[in-house]
Order: sequence, then structure tokens, then C-alpha cells
Amino acid sequence: MLKNNVLESEIDIKSQFYDLDPMNIVWHGNYARFFEQARCALLDKLDFNYQQMSETGYAWPIVDMRIKYVRPVRFPQTVRVTATLAEYENRLKINYLIRDAETLEKVTKGFTIQVAVDINTEEMMFQSPPILIEKVESLLCSPN
Amino acid sequence: MLKNNVLESEIDIKSQFYDLDPMNIVWHGNYARFFEQARCALLDKLDFNYQQMSETGYAWPIVDMRIKYVRPVRFPQTVRVTATLAEYENRLKINYLIRDAETLEKVTKGFTIQVAVDINTEEMMFQSPPILIEKVESLLCSPN
Amino acid sequence: MLKNNVLESEIDIKSQFYDLDPMNIVWHGNYARFFEQARCALLDKLDFNYQQMSETGYAWPIVDMRIKYVRPVRFPQTVRVTATLAEYENRLKINYLIRDAETLEKVTKGFTIQVAVDINTEEMMFQSPPILIEKVESLLCSPN
Amino acid sequence: MLKNNVLESEIDIKSQFYDLDPMNIVWHGNYARFFEQARCALLDKLDFNYQQMSETGYAWPIVDMRIKYVRPVRFPQTVRVTATLAEYENRLKINYLIRDAETLEKVTKGFTIQVAVDINTEEMMFQSPPILIEKVESLLCSPN
Repeated sequence: MLKNNVLESEIDIKSQFYDLDPMNIVWHGNYARFFEQARCALLDKLDFNYQQMSETGYAWPIVDMRIKYVRPVRFPQTVRVTATLAEYENRLKINYLIRDAETLEKVTKGFTIQVAVDINTEEMMFQSPPILIEKVESLLCSPN
Repeated sequence: MLKNNVLESEIDIKSQFYDLDPMNIVWHGNYARFFEQARCALLDKLDFNYQQMSETGYAWPIVDMRIKYVRPVRFPQTVRVTATLAEYENRLKINYLIRDAETLEKVTKGFTIQVAVDINTEEMMFQSPPILIEKVESLLCSPN
Repeated sequence: MLKNNVLESEIDIKSQFYDLDPMNIVWHGNYARFFEQARCALLDKLDFNYQQMSETGYAWPIVDMRIKYVRPVRFPQTVRVTATLAEYENRLKINYLIRDAETLEKVTKGFTIQVAVDINTEEMMFQSPPILIEKVESLLCSPN
Repeated sequence: MLKNNVLESEIDIKSQFYDLDPMNIVWHGNYARFFEQARCALLDKLDFNYQQMSETGYAWPIVDMRIKYVRPVRFPQTVRVTATLAEYENRLKINYLIRDAETLEKVTKGFTIQVAVDINTEEMMFQSPPILIEKVESLLCSPN
């Protein structure tokens, strides 16, 4: 029953024992893994995943990440992570919302920003390469 | 030769093979560990580390974290991580600066915000417990 | 279509970008997480998971772990991890088999050994507490 | 005061908050990181670290790892990790001993086995490439 808007992906992640810290909650640094799982699902949908990115001659390092923790996640809670494309023309900004998978109570929100870097020159691009823009816009225009 | 201001701690961390991702750079999520090492050093200096925190009846979960990545870290680069106390009266805000340990070129910056939570009532405090304020202020006033 | 023998659990795990090392394969240390996910599924089935363990007054630390790597796991490969109860009377020995989820080609095998430790005395037990033995044996005898 | 035998390296590692699990001890899977830090120190000493390995046209994946846990590691305990070269002619076997850095009480022991894989053919070698054997033997013969 996951929502599947065009520029949005949702995945469910079950927290694991190894995610926990001595306070018996998911250690704050582990949310970067939750974000990444949802981001990869979104990039798959954009037809622009890690392998496809590499083939275009650009890397897309993360240059900014923010995580706001509203409630702790406790084992073996399952959370629903939604990744939404927020910007793509000059950089790739993705917003994240983490909710309890059952109650849908908000748990965490955040964002990541990635920029294109030319793999050969190691130069940072101030506009997204045309291939990404085309992929996003063809998805936006598709009858779905 | 590490600087040691009153409300600041610096530690050197050598990046490890296990920190790297397929781009041969430290995976962005691992910086939360670098921040934590420097934060623990600062809290030790404040005489208010994890064990001491627990004994006061408050937990201090992280409620906000931001990481801005300026340059990648490559194995076996050593970085210098500086944690500086930025706020302590109502919440604990710590700023981080990561630089190359040799060139001192800026690599990353960021912050974390923690709030006190009463361990018994699980209530979030809107002011820091007096014990933290006393510890910080006694350090500020000490002849060093 | 996962097999579900009485003393065995199988789960599918999709490898993630954050699992990878610079050789573009899952870093060898991350298999401990794959084992743990399958172990928790098995312990759930035994009705003896982490929370239930804690309530009996015993902790079950891992005292031995072996991992034999046959083939690398590459992103975004999905693996099937099977955990099988091998010993329970004096200690908890679980065997693991990791296979490619599609081809079923063997990827990794290993085991973990856990022993009961009395939480109050911190003494290691040389026999499993009766509660575990009863749980396993009632499962073995159930008509399923 | 670390011992520095020819085919042995010792490093001290301070356990961190992020290493801990809900039992307030270092999570068993994290010892793979402790082993790797000591292994890299040993390989540096052999003049055969990760970069140097790559340049010879061989990768050295880990094919076997065993970890025997004798005592838990508790934050902020510092441990001394000793890596000793045990075999090098056909494969690279390294033994590890982890002790408390102050009391030298034994905490953990284990080993890893790596084999050379030709990066171009992806073929596993049943003898170590001559370059490794030369490096080890020149170190063994050096007056040091």
C-alpha cells in the first residue's frame, strides 16, 4: 500500500539490533543508511541509479545532509521512509520523511543535496547534466 | 600541537579502509562517527561525558545534525576534527570543523543539537539542567 | 517462496551502496549484519528474541563467529540468508548459509556461538537455561 | 611502549560510543574494524598496503575470518590490537590478539585469511605473487 508518486519513493525498513545504541534507540548516525535506501529507490525510479550515474561520466557526491530527529526509533520498529525529489536542475535535492510504518506518526525528516562532478576533470558542475534533466522531465510528462 | 581552548576540543582521526565507499572516498554517513569522537572529547573536557550525563537522570539525544561536505576524505588521510561548544543554556549545540591534519585545508563543517530528556518522565526539557550550566560556567571562569 | 523448516529461518537482504568497499563489493565485516538479521528471524520463530531473552535474566553474548567468503556480493545483488539452529542444549550455535537469491549459488557460510550469561552475577552458564530448551523442544514436537 | 617485532604490529584503539550495543558493550560485528586497523598497520610495515597491493595487479579479498570473544569491551576502554603474520607463501593469514591496553588482559583473538586474486582475470591464485614473498623475506632478513 505504499504511495508511489512520480517523483517520490517509499520503502519500509525494519530497524535491527545492530542499529541500536546503549539508550536502546537507533543510533543517530544510522539514519544516513535509511535515507540512502530510500534515495536509491527514488533514483531507480528516475532510471538514474548509481550504475547509470557512473556511465554518464559524472559522480554525484553528497555535499549537504540534514537530519531532524523528532522521535526515537526502537527495535524492532518498522519505519516508512519517503524520498521526494525537491530540486534537480542545478543540483539534486531530496527530502526525506520517516514515519512509523503502522501509525504513520512522524519520526524524522531531513534532506540531502548532491552535485554533479565531472569524473575526469573533478570539476563541480553548477548545472545538472542534460541527461538527468531529460530523465526527470520525461517522467514528469509520462501519462504514468 | 592541538589547540585546546576552554570550550573546544580537537582530535586527529586517521581514515580507515572500512570508511570508504566505491568512489574511494569516506562514505558521507561515516562523518557522524568523526563528529561523535570529537564531541566525546569535548564532553570529557566539560566533565560531562556519557557516564556523567546518565548519572544526572537526563539523556541527551541528538535532535538535529547537519553536515556540509566541502572536500572528500581519502584513505589514509588524517583529519583534524574540532568540536566547539556553541550553546549550552537551553540545549547543547556543538559546531564541528574538519580539516586536513597537515595542510589544515577545510574538509567539512557541521553541527549537532542535543536536548535534555528526563529519563524517568521521558519529557524533553526546554532549559538545560543546572548541573550542565554549572560545569560550563565553572570552566569558563577557571584561570585555566 | 522461502523455505520454513522448524529450526531454520530464511530472509532476503538486498545489498546497499553503503555496504560496499572500494573494490565495489560488500565489505567483509558487514556480513555480521546479514547474519544478525537472519539470527533474529530464527529467534523470533523460537519465540526467544532479544526482548524475551532479556526478560529471562540472561544475556546471550556471541563468543565465537566464523565467516567463510566464497564469492563476493555486488550491489544491488539480493542474497538469501538461511540461519539454522545447530546446538541449543549447552550453548546456542547457529549456522548460516548465504546464497544469491535468484541463482541460489553459494556465496558465504559461517556460524555464531552464543552462551547464556546470568545478568546479575555476570557468570557464564555451561548449560542453556531450561526456558530455551523448552521453547526449542516444544517447537520440535509441534505438529507445525 | 608498543612492541614492534618484524612481522607484527600493535595499535591502541579507544572504543567509542558508536561501537556499543544495547548491552553497553562493543557490538560483536565491530571487531572486524579493529582487526582491519591492525592489519593495515602490519601491511604498512610490510610495505604492502592497500595502494601498493592494487598497483601489483592483485586484489586480496578476505576469504575467512574468525573471532573468538573472551571478554566484552566497554566504553571508553582502550584495547591493544596485535596483528601477526602467520602465513604468506600461499595465502595471507594474520592472527589477532586484543588485550586491554592497561591490564593486558586478553579480550579477543581471531584470524583473517586473504588470497590473491588477479584483477584482470578474476582468477584466484594458489600461491602468493612473488612481490609479497620478496617483501616479507627482505623484512625477515633485514638487520632492523
